[in-house]
Amino acid sequence: MQRPGNQLFDAYFTARNMREVFSDQGRVQAMLDFEAALARAEARVGLIPASAVAPIEAACRAEHYDFSALGEAIAIAGNSAIPLVKALGKQIAAHDQNAERYVHLGATSQDVMDTGLVLQLRQALHLIETDLARLGEALAIQARRHVLTPMAGRTWLQHATPVTLGMKIAGWLGAVTRSRQRLQVLKPGLLVLQFGGASGTLAALGEQAMPIAEALAQELQLTLPEQPWHTQRDRLVEFGAALGLIAGSLGKLGRDISLLMQTEAAEVFEPSAPGKGGSSTMPHKRNPVGAAVLIGAATRIPGLLSTLFSAMPQEHERSLGLWHAEWETLPEICCLVSGALQQALLITEGLEVDAGRMAKNLELTQGLVLAEAVSIVLAQRIGRDSAHHLLELCCKRAVAEQRHLRAVLGDEPHVTAELSSAELDQLMNPAHYLGQAQTWVERALAEHFALTA
Amino acid sequence: MQRPGNQLFDAYFTARNMREVFSDQGRVQAMLDFEAALARAEARVGLIPASAVAPIEAACRAEHYDFSALGEAIAIAGNSAIPLVKALGKQIAAHDQNAERYVHLGATSQDVMDTGLVLQLRQALHLIETDLARLGEALAIQARRHVLTPMAGRTWLQHATPVTLGMKIAGWLGAVTRSRQRLQVLKPGLLVLQFGGASGTLAALGEQAMPIAEALAQELQLTLPEQPWHTQRDRLVEFGAALGLIAGSLGKLGRDISLLMQTEAAEVFEPSAPGKGGSSTMPHKRNPVGAAVLIGAATRIPGLLSTLFSAMPQEHERSLGLWHAEWETLPEICCLVSGALQQALLITEGLEVDAGRMAKNLELTQGLVLAEAVSIVLAQRIGRDSAHHLLELCCKRAVAEQRHLRAVLGDEPHVTAELSSAELDQLMNPAHYLGQAQTWVERALAEHFALTA
Amino acid sequence: MQRPGNQLFDAYFTARNMREVFSDQGRVQAMLDFEAALARAEARVGLIPASAVAPIEAACRAEHYDFSALGEAIAIAGNSAIPLVKALGKQIAAHDQNAERYVHLGATSQDVMDTGLVLQLRQALHLIETDLARLGEALAIQARRHVLTPMAGRTWLQHATPVTLGMKIAGWLGAVTRSRQRLQVLKPGLLVLQFGGASGTLAALGEQAMPIAEALAQELQLTLPEQPWHTQRDRLVEFGAALGLIAGSLGKLGRDISLLMQTEAAEVFEPSAPGKGGSSTMPHKRNPVGAAVLIGAATRIPGLLSTLFSAMPQEHERSLGLWHAEWETLPEICCLVSGALQQALLITEGLEVDAGRMAKNLELTQGLVLAEAVSIVLAQRIGRDSAHHLLELCCKRAVAEQRHLRAVLGDEPHVTAELSSAELDQLMNPAHYLGQAQTWVERALAEHFALTA
Amino acid sequence: MQRPGNQLFDAYFTARNMREVFSDQGRVQAMLDFEAALARAEARVGLIPASAVAPIEAACRAEHYDFSALGEAIAIAGNSAIPLVKALGKQIAAHDQNAERYVHLGATSQDVMDTGLVLQLRQALHLIETDLARLGEALAIQARRHVLTPMAGRTWLQHATPVTLGMKIAGWLGAVTRSRQRLQVLKPGLLVLQFGGASGTLAALGEQAMPIAEALAQELQLTLPEQPWHTQRDRLVEFGAALGLIAGSLGKLGRDISLLMQTEAAEVFEPSAPGKGGSSTMPHKRNPVGAAVLIGAATRIPGLLSTLFSAMPQEHERSLGLWHAEWETLPEICCLVSGALQQALLITEGLEVDAGRMAKNLELTQGLVLAEAVSIVLAQRIGRDSAHHLLELCCKRAVAEQRHLRAVLGDEPHVTAELSSAELDQLMNPAHYLGQAQTWVERALAEHFALTA
Repeated sequence: MQRPGNQLFDAYFTARNMREVFSDQGRVQAMLDFEAALARAEARVGLIPASAVAPIEAACRAEHYDFSALGEAIAIAGNSAIPLVKALGKQIAAHDQNAERYVHLGATSQDVMDTGLVLQLRQALHLIETDLARLGEALAIQARRHVLTPMAGRTWLQHATPVTLGMKIAGWLGAVTRSRQRLQVLKPGLLVLQFGGASGTLAALGEQAMPIAEALAQELQLTLPEQPWHTQRDRLVEFGAALGLIAGSLGKLGRDISLLMQTEAAEVFEPSAPGKGGSSTMPHKRNPVGAAVLIGAATRIPGLLSTLFSAMPQEHERSLGLWHAEWETLPEICCLVSGALQQALLITEGLEVDAGRMAKNLELTQGLVLAEAVSIVLAQRIGRDSAHHLLELCCKRAVAEQRHLRAVLGDEPHVTAELSSAELDQLMNPAHYLGQAQTWVERALAEHFALTA
Repeated sequence: MQRPGNQLFDAYFTARNMREVFSDQGRVQAMLDFEAALARAEARVGLIPASAVAPIEAACRAEHYDFSALGEAIAIAGNSAIPLVKALGKQIAAHDQNAERYVHLGATSQDVMDTGLVLQLRQALHLIETDLARLGEALAIQARRHVLTPMAGRTWLQHATPVTLGMKIAGWLGAVTRSRQRLQVLKPGLLVLQFGGASGTLAALGEQAMPIAEALAQELQLTLPEQPWHTQRDRLVEFGAALGLIAGSLGKLGRDISLLMQTEAAEVFEPSAPGKGGSSTMPHKRNPVGAAVLIGAATRIPGLLSTLFSAMPQEHERSLGLWHAEWETLPEICCLVSGALQQALLITEGLEVDAGRMAKNLELTQGLVLAEAVSIVLAQRIGRDSAHHLLELCCKRAVAEQRHLRAVLGDEPHVTAELSSAELDQLMNPAHYLGQAQTWVERALAEHFALTA
Repeated sequence: MQRPGNQLFDAYFTARNMREVFSDQGRVQAMLDFEAALARAEARVGLIPASAVAPIEAACRAEHYDFSALGEAIAIAGNSAIPLVKALGKQIAAHDQNAERYVHLGATSQDVMDTGLVLQLRQALHLIETDLARLGEALAIQARRHVLTPMAGRTWLQHATPVTLGMKIAGWLGAVTRSRQRLQVLKPGLLVLQFGGASGTLAALGEQAMPIAEALAQELQLTLPEQPWHTQRDRLVEFGAALGLIAGSLGKLGRDISLLMQTEAAEVFEPSAPGKGGSSTMPHKRNPVGAAVLIGAATRIPGLLSTLFSAMPQEHERSLGLWHAEWETLPEICCLVSGALQQALLITEGLEVDAGRMAKNLELTQGLVLAEAVSIVLAQRIGRDSAHHLLELCCKRAVAEQRHLRAVLGDEPHVTAELSSAELDQLMNPAHYLGQAQTWVERALAEHFALTA
Repeated sequence: MQRPGNQLFDAYFTARNMREVFSDQGRVQAMLDFEAALARAEARVGLIPASAVAPIEAACRAEHYDFSALGEAIAIAGNSAIPLVKALGKQIAAHDQNAERYVHLGATSQDVMDTGLVLQLRQALHLIETDLARLGEALAIQARRHVLTPMAGRTWLQHATPVTLGMKIAGWLGAVTRSRQRLQVLKPGLLVLQFGGASGTLAALGEQAMPIAEALAQELQLTLPEQPWHTQRDRLVEFGAALGLIAGSLGKLGRDISLLMQTEAAEVFEPSAPGKGGSSTMPHKRNPVGAAVLIGAATRIPGLLSTLFSAMPQEHERSLGLWHAEWETLPEICCLVSGALQQALLITEGLEVDAGRMAKNLELTQGLVLAEAVSIVLAQRIGRDSAHHLLELCCKRAVAEQRHLRAVLGDEPHVTAELSSAELDQLMNPAHYLGQAQTWVERALAEHFALTA
């Protein structure tokens, strides 16, 4: 039976390779990988005959299964493992009746589902790490390229003293670098086997329990944790939170881009492409189509994360309802982050910059954003209080008379007595008042390269 | 190109008819319904020739379109309307080149998407109202059936004075009734046209704007609101919140059921069905498979709702990112609520009740939960303080000696001086200490029937 | 013992009168109001002697109680009613030993706390309705004042066809009007008595239960609901959601203001005041100090709301933990909304508008935002396709040559053949391409006045 | 002016020492600590005279300031640093007019507030680490104590094969251990200086910027990060998420306790104390007053966290609104976690266990939970399929005849042919079917001690 699909926004909001990881195919295959590995492990330890392994492995391929029928059976069983194991049994039996008796021995549904999930998360993690590394690289290149490009600093959305585009990009890069470090740190704790049997004791496997658990972890190249974690979900939620941090940092990048692309600012742009971001009624527009995805993901993921955190107090040895709340939520987070990364890469690698407009916008306050620069030099000559007072007066006059601060300063004898016209010109040049902007870029690059090396 | 699907849990967590409403097919058809109605409205007002309507209408059928290709185009365009309108134009032109020029006149992408969404929400609302009415009916029947069935009241998960199962069900019913009332109230405000053109002024339609808007609203049987609402999303979020209240109330039902199904309580059960809620390792178990869905939905929807609320501060005349955050979130809420309703119906209509076990469980505290009943009658004879003091002593003795309170009371001369053995028996019978339990049921039923009538 | 206070941001983020409603004093007084009314009700029905009422009422004044000691006792008791009722008993007994025996008869802690909360919510509702009405009035005045003030429409943060400031304000007003309507609708359902005794049956009150419940509701001027609602929390959460809608709508207002105040836009400003929004380092800045509160509240309340929704599945006849999660959350939402309203009033009543800058900004695209206007008129003369094609060419030339579209059009013989110079000037005047902007204002005002009348 | 306080639940929901960290006093002192350290750093580098340091330090004591007046000024200024720095200046000037000129040089408000916050978080982190260590210790002791205490495993709230109380506690312990590890890992990244001046470039400090930044970091014993992080908030949110994981894990502990304390289970109890958890109407009850706090915190913190994540996309060089949304949210999370830890310690250290009741409850299914144990041994003798089939029959008969499985098995010749009565007794003893329960405890203890050592 055809199931109604809901995928219209998939290509826009998510990356295809991540969708594949969490597709029906991906889920089922991961659970089957668990079953195949379990058979191998139990054969190694001698619990089941070696001859059972091949037939089981042969049946452990997702393409053998009817996902639509599985879906219907899940609605009766209450989880995805019970009907899959049943179908798997039939599939094995069809080729080797004997082998069928050796499948899933000692395991419980949650072992299959949770370890299957961990196998999917390993793939997801790999995709995200790869994209983050590429994004870090792109940001590093852009930060370096624009290390000396002055632009207005903006606090509270108001112009403040100048910064550089490189420094702004270095800020984005720093967040990416930290997220990469976080994933490195949490990976060993995330990629752990779940294997406990009915209530978590592995009692059904008797003395062979630990050897099988160890062999199974080895087969799957997962860590054997100190104990099963069927109702201790902190590792999964920690991973979700790490993804949430990525989404938040990319949301910041997207917000900055969207603000800089405003018609009034027009300093930085997403790369153009035929038809990209056009409006259905305004042919001249250039909408921040990629930034929308970044902001969208940063708006959706916090809610999804709160679900994961809310679902942590799972009852006793297996929860009902809270466990279920995870099943689609963590995959959705992974997919949304993958989509945000996809767009961030497009934006960053093809970033278009209008340095001329930046310079022009820096003049919007007619020099006021550089009053501080003049004040500081003047302070060294006439004292801090006098300098501050003098500049304050000049700024007020500039505003009142709608003149440029440079002109007002040039008119003011108390100023010209101390500063020559050339000195004033120099002080009023944003490029000379960038402080440690370049240092921040260099330091952010250093952290990036330290990680990459 | 085949898109990777992720639908394994759809049948368990959502209702099929709701998934159809929000499927690719459903979304696209709703947008096309807008375009067809717009053509009819503009022809009625005379903006476009009547001859253009039929070709446009003919093209406005979702099955003409390739959803996969649309999905890819959305990723470039930044919304679903631009590529659909383009494809629609081609589809019309293929049959009537002239008519193609008259499609989408004066409308903007958001008009198509938002009004299309409202058309979907009308369908969703209908499904939910239908299920809620049926659920109300089922609860009313059960409340009436068990109006006299005593069971332990439980506060803080501890036994308290007795209640009835009917009263507990009446509580569930009351919440359903109120949710139905809420939907009735909000419906007129939700089912409104969005039609504003590029920036919301309908300027492109000149003098004909209002007549067309009125005709369009009429064609779609939607209300024409006081103004376009492209960045005022409160109506949508209000609907989401109303669904959230349903989910929360059903979550409460699910939680109660799951607690009552505990092996230790075993008072009320989801209906059994072959294979339903069986465990892969424990053949005797009967898992609350339906309650899990109710609790799961009540755990997921709050996070999704927080996204909708977070996405309200949309910029100027059209937001980027916050608008996007809605596109999949509100449909997901609808689908999860539909699934919770589906399970609540299954549970409620087939509810299995073990009144004998309820009676037995009422004895777990050996009469302590009825100390209050004795104390009150005694107070009328020996004064409130003395009565309270006396009962306190007896309760303590009952606990210390692990005897039934009835026995302790029967031993206590100060008690037997006032209350005969028959009186004591009567007072210690939970069925005689149910207060207004029956009144609450009747009143809840009255509200239910008032709504249904 | 002095308790460490955390109130530094109270004056900025919340309104003082709302903080008073939810202060220790406010909470305790509301619970005492319940106890006093209960005594009156029970005396009216004859359960307790009339002489007990006055001593109980005299003790029901919050100033008699030590909130710090109460706080410590709450930590032992697990709720605020138990220690308060104990202290109340002592306070009564100090003046009238006999009356002490008649306090709190038949009620349970949750009755006191929940009904007390409803009494506080009635005050909160009044404050919010008052502020919303005043805000509606201020917005109505501003919408009317600026009904003809053209400004750039902005979609995706890009300039689109012109709108008016009045229309933008009418959008804010519409949301306020709808929120006021919502509060009116939900009020009767919110202001209901909670009165159920130990497990909700009122069994301890025997035959007198309903008369007392009715008298109590009357005393408190609350509605007697169809049944107690100790673990059916939808009414409270519905109110929270209604507040969340207000916060979201005000957040939209705040976001618009903050964007319009940008140095690059500089069209609309929060009113200035001495020291307001100054920067510690940039004397010329004018920070959107009020908008920050609106955006802050709209960012915080969705999370708080998700807690309320998450806390709905409360167990059996009284929840532990989920009920507790409400106690500070709903008050916090009320307080944050009050603060947002306070700032919205300041902003709206003192709004500063630079219509000249709006006109100037409308020219930022050098006429491109009006291409649509020319195209439409031209279409009536040379056909829609030709007109559209011609304008597209002219727009491209304008962009390529960095010239104003008016100049390019004036150079283009195909255009000048149809449109005179005066006609072109008129078409390129934003004030002539405002569509239904004025209609929207009028309609929004009509809804506002309909509500207010 | 007295400010209305709202602290009634503080003692119950939060720990006093944590409230002190985030009190007005705590906030102001932390900001002043920044200013004092800045003066010392600038004097070390030679930017300001050494003589200015002492007067500045003398003024940097929170008790000099009027928090109520500060609160009012914050409402005008839009942040807490501007009015504090103003008040600080006055305070210094009152004793040393000259020194006043040297305060806050080169810093911006956000430097003061953010670094002040980090100083508070260092204290908070210390409190949480201390409590977590103590909680780990208490759990280790209890896990060891109950390592051999069998109890029913419960999956989906249904009895499953037996576990031990020690193993359940080891699960709680494992989560605590991982949280401690997480805090250790994130600490260096969290405890970083924020110092950027107006727009983050430190331009006002010229060449001396980096030496001052380094000296300042040293003075405060904070790390100097690669760049300022005024709008890159991931470090703070990561900390919030780590606290959220603690809350979730404690919520799980609280949920388990509350379920085990149910009248129907009655296996494990919070320690009793005079008046603790009594009901106002039911003298015999023992409410899980501490578990309520754990569940409450785990219900509230996810929403607060979603706010922190939502607030990450902060604009440009300083956000308005999103930054503001953090100010009270992160402290609230810290306080709620502190309260949950406080209750978890009370519960864990004084845990009361009824092992007899556990044994009794294990019999609730009349042996069914041990069918698996018999089946496995039987399988070794008559083959897996026959064994499984045989047990299934016996289980069904046990249920149908309401007899104990042991009795049914003893009646069944196919069983008794293989298993002696003694063997059957042994197999039906839960203590012999505990699998790796003890191993999990040992491994969890090993991880705990590895961390503590």
